[in-house]
Amino acid sequence: MMKAGLSVLLALVVMSSAFGKYVPKSGKRIPQTLSRGWGDQLIWAQTYEEALYWARSRNKPLMVLFHLEDCPHSHELRKVLSEDNGIQKMLDEDFVVLNLMYETTDKHLSPDGQYVPRIIFVDPAMTVRADIVGRYSNRMYAYEPADIKLLKSNMEKAKKLLKSEL
Amino acid sequence: MMKAGLSVLLALVVMSSAFGKYVPKSGKRIPQTLSRGWGDQLIWAQTYEEALYWARSRNKPLMVLFHLEDCPHSHELRKVLSEDNGIQKMLDEDFVVLNLMYETTDKHLSPDGQYVPRIIFVDPAMTVRADIVGRYSNRMYAYEPADIKLLKSNMEKAKKLLKSEL
Repeated sequence: MMKAGLSVLLALVVMSSAFGKYVPKSGKRIPQTLSRGWGDQLIWAQTYEEALYWARSRNKPLMVLFHLEDCPHSHELRKVLSEDNGIQKMLDEDFVVLNLMYETTDKHLSPDGQYVPRIIFVDPAMTVRADIVGRYSNRMYAYEPADIKLLKSNMEKAKKLLKSEL
Repeated sequence: MMKAGLSVLLALVVMSSAFGKYVPKSGKRIPQTLSRGWGDQLIWAQTYEEALYWARSRNKPLMVLFHLEDCPHSHELRKVLSEDNGIQKMLDEDFVVLNLMYETTDKHLSPDGQYVPRIIFVDPAMTVRADIVGRYSNRMYAYEPADIKLLKSNMEKAKKLLKSEL
């Protein structure tokens, strides 16, 4: 009897919380994630300002990923990058990560223009690593799924901080 | 037999996808949401730049919410605001929404200093509505849980766009 009472109570609590919540006219939505599919297990910064602060205070390089929802090249790269455990582990342990669907006001983040997908590394000393480039001379910070090895070696480059080169 | 085969196949698919994913050393994490608890059903902008663009292109006022994870006042306000269906509906239908745990470089968003929680409205004509204030003269854009009615009437004020006053 005690048990049954508890079940009813639980059911009521669950029901009231389910009925109590705001549901849009168009139906319930899946909450947006900050990862946007680029790695649900990573701790993503929300803004460039936040990311820079983390990079400086943790002395870790920052990887900024520019992408768009309706860009098939972004989707292809995202699939490969999010499923590569080696890259995910490195990003989790050695980098500060930020993915943006919107350009910032800082022009240093678009050394050769604004396009997606685009990956820019920033040293914790606040220097944009314009020297770390991909394979394409017309879009130097673009990567395709086939370039994942190059991306990994570029991440290794970014891990060698500028200060340590002095 | 057919059914059993399908179950095994399904189980294998589930297992392989579960085993295949990167899991941090510290254990699996809950993916971060952009809502950060302020309304899981709302469409949140990620950055101030994105929010401004949405406000302008949709001709809707923007509400910017500054808060911090380790601030009890933020938590209290969040609880009230996220559970108020009237506010959630208004935010969903009539506003562009942005919540930030980090200050932007735009000083117009901190008319009387940087503190949390702080709610600033921005007109789609890109004017920060410094005239829409709360109850406290020393922190004019702060709201406490008891101020939720005032917040609602301030939202109504923000909905009356500056252009329409001309």
